[in-house]
Amino acid sequence: MTIKITGTGSYIPENIEKNEDFHQHEFLNVDGSQINSPNEVIVEKFKAITGIVERRYADDKLIASDLGFLAAEKAIEDAKIDREDIDYIIVAHNFGDVKKDAIQSDILPCLATRVKHKLRIKNPKCVAYDILFGCPGWIEGTIQAQAFIKAGMAKKCLVIGAETLSRVVDKHDRDSMIYSDGAGATIIEATDEEGGILAHNTASFTYDEAYYLFFGNSNNPELDKDTRYIKMHGRKIYEFALTNVPLAMKECLDESGVDIKDVKKVLIHQANEKMDEAIIKRFYRLYKTPVPEGIMPMSIHKLGNSSVATVPTLFDFIRNNKLENQQIEKGDVIIFASVGAGMHINAIVYKY
Amino acid sequence: MTIKITGTGSYIPENIEKNEDFHQHEFLNVDGSQINSPNEVIVEKFKAITGIVERRYADDKLIASDLGFLAAEKAIEDAKIDREDIDYIIVAHNFGDVKKDAIQSDILPCLATRVKHKLRIKNPKCVAYDILFGCPGWIEGTIQAQAFIKAGMAKKCLVIGAETLSRVVDKHDRDSMIYSDGAGATIIEATDEEGGILAHNTASFTYDEAYYLFFGNSNNPELDKDTRYIKMHGRKIYEFALTNVPLAMKECLDESGVDIKDVKKVLIHQANEKMDEAIIKRFYRLYKTPVPEGIMPMSIHKLGNSSVATVPTLFDFIRNNKLENQQIEKGDVIIFASVGAGMHINAIVYKY
Repeated sequence: MTIKITGTGSYIPENIEKNEDFHQHEFLNVDGSQINSPNEVIVEKFKAITGIVERRYADDKLIASDLGFLAAEKAIEDAKIDREDIDYIIVAHNFGDVKKDAIQSDILPCLATRVKHKLRIKNPKCVAYDILFGCPGWIEGTIQAQAFIKAGMAKKCLVIGAETLSRVVDKHDRDSMIYSDGAGATIIEATDEEGGILAHNTASFTYDEAYYLFFGNSNNPELDKDTRYIKMHGRKIYEFALTNVPLAMKECLDESGVDIKDVKKVLIHQANEKMDEAIIKRFYRLYKTPVPEGIMPMSIHKLGNSSVATVPTLFDFIRNNKLENQQIEKGDVIIFASVGAGMHINAIVYKY
Repeated sequence: MTIKITGTGSYIPENIEKNEDFHQHEFLNVDGSQINSPNEVIVEKFKAITGIVERRYADDKLIASDLGFLAAEKAIEDAKIDREDIDYIIVAHNFGDVKKDAIQSDILPCLATRVKHKLRIKNPKCVAYDILFGCPGWIEGTIQAQAFIKAGMAKKCLVIGAETLSRVVDKHDRDSMIYSDGAGATIIEATDEEGGILAHNTASFTYDEAYYLFFGNSNNPELDKDTRYIKMHGRKIYEFALTNVPLAMKECLDESGVDIKDVKKVLIHQANEKMDEAIIKRFYRLYKTPVPEGIMPMSIHKLGNSSVATVPTLFDFIRNNKLENQQIEKGDVIIFASVGAGMHINAIVYKY
């Protein structure tokens, strides 16, 4: 038995928020003080570091579970399975369903329940739960699906990452430009084909790093102290990721037994282009090998950071030839890797 | 190999909220109209149905992850394990960390990260994630721990249910009297001892039932429409639970191969005394067997409904002789069962 991703789907909101759309924002430092640069300069500097040119925001009427449902419909169709045969629906997210202009996360019932309800699945044996695991939630959901299959508890799982980060940003924080909305979905199945998940690796660094990403107040001290937003210590995250993500990826690859030269693609969480480039450089340096051209497909320029949705969306794009000069062939070895709030890191070595 | 619960702990807040404390509340019907009964009558009727006399509210300074941490410390001590050997920390909840008098759920980072941080565990290989699965979250977390152990991914897991429902109640809703705060924690281990988890069963009923429990507006139409609270369609839940919970328990017991006569305790989610009594009657009726006296320990009278915390707390109380006339002996067969938002139902047959 192998465990393979037999279907993928993604939902990309149609509303494009360009970098220029932030020119009128009032950005402030963490201490509430003015930033001594015009917004045009702030935005250009932001673009130079993150690579982000534009990002997507969900329609006002849609919430995260809607995006997850829309991606799931495509993944089910792609896998050509009967939706009533799905044993698990696992939805990864960080903030639940947040209505436009509301500040509360709605997670009752859990989003997996909502997705299953929208999919009109009747089978009560299809267990629907949410996992909270920061941006690496979709990869971790896939690792959990693998566990259920290995333990004889499931044959087919639907694993979704769905997020509307645009609803939890502090408009006075430059980091608000990073975040985006979207959803990616995958069908994970026990199969008799060759390949599939060869190895996985997960780590939770919480001793010093638990609050590198956190829920905090606006940079504008005049705003309500009881209202909180997604916040991060960017510099600390950058250094943490550079040290630990390449090591986690190496551990996973070594466990898989695959030679570094046989890795065809590395799909890393789209958090920040400069950070991802530094991670991939360090990863290859661990093998004393140059970074192969085109090894790391990127979607961040046009899609921003949609948290749990970036990796499954990227995979779906490549499978469907939606990324220029990025293809995969049957038998290719791919590494999925992510890092995020927790701080959690994970990786999967996968033979397509 | 067997999979056993080798340690338990619970945290019960010290603040007692008595039924009389609700005498001054302004209860309203769902449509905002006045209820044509004095509060004393409303409260007495509530007590007659639910069995609840008093409930516990967390200290203002504590949040759900604090309660989970306090319960976890006891479970780790009880299991006599080195905390650095824990492979998974799984935290079940429904609303995350909600500060006193705030309306936002704080789930960034996830609560398992916070608990691990507070436990001062250094080992990054200890994976810390949250599961959202309604009130059955602790049982489902235990089932997931079992899956990781069976799949060879873990040997020791810490599974916690922690909740501060007092922070998400609508004070104009009579159902607000049901909800309580608390936490229960357990260590789940691969062992060579006899017994442990013999069978499990989970179902998610989402087709018609997804929103039986939901996040909704106050019964007071003058309050902010963007502020939502825990809400339920009590009558629908009651009927749903009576139909489906006994069947799920039976399916689980039959799979375990244990005779109904050998079941020593049934630990059901403490949602409502009348409902739990009706469930246990129907369960035994499925076996054409009278309900044995004392088979169903209850903590609801003094502790109310603390969601994910009720079942592990109840188990911890019985193990530690904190419930009058309720003991368990090595080798006794216990059924754990729960039902809640989703609507999810699950059960475990466990040999102590």
